Amino acid sequence: MLSENRYGKSGIRLVKVIRRRERHEIRDWTVAVALEGDFAAAHERGDNARVLPTDTMKNTVYAMASEDPLDSMESFGLALSRHFLESPPLPSRVTISLEQHPWERIPAAGGPHASAFLRPGGESRLAAVTRTREGARIEAGLEGLTILKSAASAFAGFLRDRFTTLRDATDRIFATSVSARWLYSGGTDLAWELLARAIRGTLLETFADHDSASVQHTLDAMGEAVLERHAEVGEIRLTLPNKHHIPVDLNPFGLENRNEIFVATEEPYGRIEATLRRG
Amino acid sequence: MLSENRYGKSGIRLVKVIRRRERHEIRDWTVAVALEGDFAAAHERGDNARVLPTDTMKNTVYAMASEDPLDSMESFGLALSRHFLESPPLPSRVTISLEQHPWERIPAAGGPHASAFLRPGGESRLAAVTRTREGARIEAGLEGLTILKSAASAFAGFLRDRFTTLRDATDRIFATSVSARWLYSGGTDLAWELLARAIRGTLLETFADHDSASVQHTLDAMGEAVLERHAEVGEIRLTLPNKHHIPVDLNPFGLENRNEIFVATEEPYGRIEATLRRG
Amino acid sequence: MLSENRYGKSGIRLVKVIRRRERHEIRDWTVAVALEGDFAAAHERGDNARVLPTDTMKNTVYAMASEDPLDSMESFGLALSRHFLESPPLPSRVTISLEQHPWERIPAAGGPHASAFLRPGGESRLAAVTRTREGARIEAGLEGLTILKSAASAFAGFLRDRFTTLRDATDRIFATSVSARWLYSGGTDLAWELLARAIRGTLLETFADHDSASVQHTLDAMGEAVLERHAEVGEIRLTLPNKHHIPVDLNPFGLENRNEIFVATEEPYGRIEATLRRG
Amino acid sequence: MLSENRYGKSGIRLVKVIRRRERHEIRDWTVAVALEGDFAAAHERGDNARVLPTDTMKNTVYAMASEDPLDSMESFGLALSRHFLESPPLPSRVTISLEQHPWERIPAAGGPHASAFLRPGGESRLAAVTRTREGARIEAGLEGLTILKSAASAFAGFLRDRFTTLRDATDRIFATSVSARWLYSGGTDLAWELLARAIRGTLLETFADHDSASVQHTLDAMGEAVLERHAEVGEIRLTLPNKHHIPVDLNPFGLENRNEIFVATEEPYGRIEATLRRG
Repeated sequence: MLSENRYGKSGIRLVKVIRRRERHEIRDWTVAVALEGDFAAAHERGDNARVLPTDTMKNTVYAMASEDPLDSMESFGLALSRHFLESPPLPSRVTISLEQHPWERIPAAGGPHASAFLRPGGESRLAAVTRTREGARIEAGLEGLTILKSAASAFAGFLRDRFTTLRDATDRIFATSVSARWLYSGGTDLAWELLARAIRGTLLETFADHDSASVQHTLDAMGEAVLERHAEVGEIRLTLPNKHHIPVDLNPFGLENRNEIFVATEEPYGRIEATLRRG
Repeated sequence: MLSENRYGKSGIRLVKVIRRRERHEIRDWTVAVALEGDFAAAHERGDNARVLPTDTMKNTVYAMASEDPLDSMESFGLALSRHFLESPPLPSRVTISLEQHPWERIPAAGGPHASAFLRPGGESRLAAVTRTREGARIEAGLEGLTILKSAASAFAGFLRDRFTTLRDATDRIFATSVSARWLYSGGTDLAWELLARAIRGTLLETFADHDSASVQHTLDAMGEAVLERHAEVGEIRLTLPNKHHIPVDLNPFGLENRNEIFVATEEPYGRIEATLRRG
Repeated sequence: MLSENRYGKSGIRLVKVIRRRERHEIRDWTVAVALEGDFAAAHERGDNARVLPTDTMKNTVYAMASEDPLDSMESFGLALSRHFLESPPLPSRVTISLEQHPWERIPAAGGPHASAFLRPGGESRLAAVTRTREGARIEAGLEGLTILKSAASAFAGFLRDRFTTLRDATDRIFATSVSARWLYSGGTDLAWELLARAIRGTLLETFADHDSASVQHTLDAMGEAVLERHAEVGEIRLTLPNKHHIPVDLNPFGLENRNEIFVATEEPYGRIEATLRRG
Repeated sequence: MLSENRYGKSGIRLVKVIRRRERHEIRDWTVAVALEGDFAAAHERGDNARVLPTDTMKNTVYAMASEDPLDSMESFGLALSRHFLESPPLPSRVTISLEQHPWERIPAAGGPHASAFLRPGGESRLAAVTRTREGARIEAGLEGLTILKSAASAFAGFLRDRFTTLRDATDRIFATSVSARWLYSGGTDLAWELLARAIRGTLLETFADHDSASVQHTLDAMGEAVLERHAEVGEIRLTLPNKHHIPVDLNPFGLENRNEIFVATEEPYGRIEATLRRG
């Protein structure tokens, strides 16, 4: 009766200080390893002979990190996934998920500091490598990129029914927290860090400049721009919560709200998601 | 280039006080509505004529809740999903997701209080109804059921490689926070609340009594017990994080740890998941 | 220029399994240790000779927990505070703060299970022992006790000014999450667990039965009841956020809201706090 | 028996778009209002005649925000506190607490965008104005400034006892999340925004450049630098959790850890706090 199953170790906190002569570099990642394969004996009979302990997976991450340059999450994910796929118990599928906790250099008199860092916070970059005997699938993404535009955003001309009380808005605040995942189709040896930064730039620029008729409309423009400008991306999935900013009614106090005063709300929120794929 | 897309309103906080003559009842739910269908015009051209505002979805939840008895999340999810599927813009798929925030009566001199309640916290019950022209799919579940057993749990005889340092454990703490989702296959008019409570009882009882050789082993036993005892369930998916409790080494202080003193850790954690389906 | 200072270890996760012949008991606490005293040399000159490492504080908690029966957080806090006050570097004040993560037994066929437990969640019990050469101060409390009453709650006849739009409410929902701290004045050898349970019962019963004219009014009644019924308590501080439940306007949909349908909101919230002291 | 008491509204989410001709500016704050005074009648008898509803406090924040330039949290806090102190019910003390949610401009082709913003996240700036008939007390601060240095940090030569297992570290990672609060002593009309930015710069620069013998040592240096460079600050309180980074033992795998591979831990953590006051 067992159908799918997978197991592994999550929340492996890995920090590496790369001690170059002139300055240090920091890699601060959370790594997760998951294996799929024939583990029926463990499930059904409690036979652990083919079960690699999740504690060993954790050890492996630290040991391999000490010998890998950690150039990018993608390159380390590729190396880790190869190791686990080729080692006992020879699983059929390995997934390595990574999240980057970014650090910037603290500004100092003579430029960015060599060994003191500041966590910018808020946003994180993600990568996931899934590997089977057929090959590797590389997904990257970002989470928690919170953005807002106070011009060039409307929502009007929508469908109305008996439960509709919303009025047309021709000039509203559009605020969201971007969750993006894109799939690379251009091989296993790309300039991962540069690409991720460029894709983020495309998302931001499109959001800022788009003349938005709805969240859906801007989401589509953002996804299209990524597919147009970045040939390495085969598909992108975007989730944009609509973080509503409601104008406050100041009339009871004899004041006019000239589209200036808003209450930022958490609940309820719109939730818009779509996948765009190269046609 | 647009492939999948969906949109809706999440985080709709709904509280209903059902004022019976002798005592009040509380329904405290968070509801989400999502529609899928042909929304290409909105995405690609910013044409909102077929877009039902998410604000209207929220209004609809409150309006329908005032006329529905709210017997269960499943019954209300079925009613809501029918309304949205049959209303403009006639989407192809509707998903209603619900989370229950439970309230118990405060104990009073003459028994449970008629109108004063206590939130037990920790755990929540979930339901999701997905409806298309072909029919409705009803999933239920629970999240955050945190349990621990201090006997009858081992992990030994596992695969070892050069990165393995873990030792066999014949008597360890097994702690987890159960996430469960099951799919009903027995129609749209079941005793949803009773069933959910009975399935939770089966999960708890099996966890407590199982002689565990691993998390996988106990997960399998829990899923099998649900399928065996509850004919209405066609499939169950369980996710059991292994919330490690590490014995503290007291030798440096001239003390012996007789398997009594542990540190409870959050990271890293094992993550075991599987789906069991009626064969 | 250094005035106050203190340092210590927080977040020490301590789990002890007390293995009685017939059944196990669990203590699951988070402990914090803080020392105050003359640490100017460490601050001003980087001289650590009088600095006991916070790592040692953690070790001490585990070592002493292995030899202490852990009857209550208060009794263990008293023992730990005595140890640190009397050990080098002979601090002038020691504070031990403890938080209890409760576990209940899983119900089984023959009664509560001997070694399988369920975390009820939501609410936690707290204790803090502060010790100086003059003696020990014992504070206890609870956090996150979320309660609601759907009858016997009003708010009317309040002060109005030009910014007031709120209307009198004669029958409203009153929901809050109690944060309570009380100071014991009856010595260092009380029945701590029983007392804490009884005080919680008094808080709940008073909340449930009180005919509430405001949050302030009920807060006062709850505090007074504790001081009246529990002679060991010299002072109690209560913080009651007003977790607003707003009636939904159903008129636009041709429906009447008979005080039944509410939206539960997180922000903004009222915040009412007061200390009651034995007169 | 009632001793201290206070009440008010917290979590008031205020967003103002300042629509200048060439570009928009955003103020995104969470505001809390609290009043203290003679509210015994409300507490003891449920008489609300002197109770200004917390809903009115919220309305007042929005109404006054529409007429105030919102130059800084401090200036708006001063205006709000004056209003409440001078209005019925004439409280004896008013506290306005504010938290800033920062927004940066999205970079665009022609420079920073005029109306599109990015939330940098992570860190927040705080202000609190407390006003009585005697005058106003202005505190400012920051929270969540997460920083790390991978050089010039040691901890050695500390006190040892039978529970000490920690070894001297001459080159360790020092990571912390700064919580700072400082008290202004230079009047009510300072350049609040510039000052807060400059103080933050001083904290960062001192952290980066200090040759650290302990967290206490660096905390002291950071506080002293603020008092030395910023005459407007009369007192500063710093709380620096020690976010431990533990070197991973790679010996079991035949590898050497050249002070490069660390596990970042959340619990337990050191907690160091001190107040420095102008002598």
